Amino acid sequence: MKLLRYGDKGREKPGLLDESGTLRDLSGQVDDIAGEVLSDGGLARLRELDPATLPAVEGTPRLGPCVGGVSKIPAIGLNYSDHAAESNLPVPSEPIIFTKAVSSLSGPYDDVERPRNSQSLDWEVELAIVIGKRTKYVTEEAAMDHIAGFAVMNDVSEREFQAKRQGQWTKGKSHDTFAPLGPWLVTRDEVGDPHVLDLWLDVNGERRQTGNTRTLIFNVPFIVSYVSQFMTLQPGDVIPTGTPPGVGMGMNPQQFLNPGDVMELGITGLGSQRQTVISA
Amino acid sequence: MKLLRYGDKGREKPGLLDESGTLRDLSGQVDDIAGEVLSDGGLARLRELDPATLPAVEGTPRLGPCVGGVSKIPAIGLNYSDHAAESNLPVPSEPIIFTKAVSSLSGPYDDVERPRNSQSLDWEVELAIVIGKRTKYVTEEAAMDHIAGFAVMNDVSEREFQAKRQGQWTKGKSHDTFAPLGPWLVTRDEVGDPHVLDLWLDVNGERRQTGNTRTLIFNVPFIVSYVSQFMTLQPGDVIPTGTPPGVGMGMNPQQFLNPGDVMELGITGLGSQRQTVISA
Repeated sequence: MKLLRYGDKGREKPGLLDESGTLRDLSGQVDDIAGEVLSDGGLARLRELDPATLPAVEGTPRLGPCVGGVSKIPAIGLNYSDHAAESNLPVPSEPIIFTKAVSSLSGPYDDVERPRNSQSLDWEVELAIVIGKRTKYVTEEAAMDHIAGFAVMNDVSEREFQAKRQGQWTKGKSHDTFAPLGPWLVTRDEVGDPHVLDLWLDVNGERRQTGNTRTLIFNVPFIVSYVSQFMTLQPGDVIPTGTPPGVGMGMNPQQFLNPGDVMELGITGLGSQRQTVISA
Repeated sequence: MKLLRYGDKGREKPGLLDESGTLRDLSGQVDDIAGEVLSDGGLARLRELDPATLPAVEGTPRLGPCVGGVSKIPAIGLNYSDHAAESNLPVPSEPIIFTKAVSSLSGPYDDVERPRNSQSLDWEVELAIVIGKRTKYVTEEAAMDHIAGFAVMNDVSEREFQAKRQGQWTKGKSHDTFAPLGPWLVTRDEVGDPHVLDLWLDVNGERRQTGNTRTLIFNVPFIVSYVSQFMTLQPGDVIPTGTPPGVGMGMNPQQFLNPGDVMELGITGLGSQRQTVISA
């Protein structure tokens, strides 16, 4: 299933994209794509519905972040060996966890703000894990059962804020609109093996990032198990898993985003996003 | 006013501590000590109530974290010059922001879990700012108007997870029960100047931390203004402002917490907390 949230910011309704690409309204069935709806039982109930019986949504509404009720976004840094190399940083011996503020979540086609005093705004296409149930000290073997599904995230980053303003990356990762999520959550069963997916990102029509999740340093079940040793994950929590090579910081000369620039990005089977940069 | 939340974990009701120390039930008035209730208007409406007309709560219920609906906890590191010295770290040129997971919030008297594989569990008494309204790019001059009030927080920390597991402090700051908050939120008007408050913390009855907020490196309005340059604060967001000297990591020899140890801590006018350490 492809689940999504559509409508005005902060008042999104739950929806489903059917096989023919028609957006169907789920608001008669569930309040949101959040919490218990993301559990195995909650997803099974949605799977039993015949999409043809759900109201088709008219027009082309805005899409919001594809998951609601997100309580945290612990993200994995430097998880592709070739991206670590372009960042001039060693391959980590265990996952780096940083956090993005939940207030940075936005829709897949919403504008991305360049913060005031920003001169190094950068892009990062990432496979995002969406958690389906409470997860604390889960084993690697059991970890996949704790995942509701996957989505595309652009882990938008301000490099000076991230690295040159007293450490702790969260400063460069948390501005409003820095976490476009979607267009939809694709459930785990439909994704199959998450370690064979192509990722790509273009800026103004030029290919900047190309990668495949097979080169992840730490794979999906390892990440979920690992993060759950340090904090308890809740349904709807989102874990971006790191970005492949091709970020602006790694280019020679470095290239960063300006108002008017357009990012387009996608992952096999998970759809694509498009954002225009504006001034904050 | 002193506002609090009482009852079983995850099902806390809103309450108020009246002048005589009686706990009064606010659940007939508001759903939670959260969101709009924390705005100037929301607090003014509560202030108009005659506490004597509110039901007295019988017995001595558990207290939960004194604020609900917390969307993030951006915390300030090394904000007392003498604590920076004991940590062998330079005084920062601008605030360090790290994050605690919201799932780490707990009640002021709840047990604190020592995580599995933890051998360096530490304490940190801190003045916590509670935000009252949406805050983005606020000036230092206007920042105090964005604060609902203040509370005690124990910024419980696992030092090895924090510093020796691939940087990014959040790993050592986010375990369940690592953020006891309360016993109550004291509103801004009642606190007055937040820069003249004594802080103290005892472990097993021995004084470990003594400090006063007058030695904060970055003061309260500066912090709120500063954090709002990097992320948008929402009502109920909590900013722990750093800890004074006396943490276990800074002792010679270093001293860390074991199951059975008891922490007691408090701040002038904001009440006190007490936690027993247990195994996770």
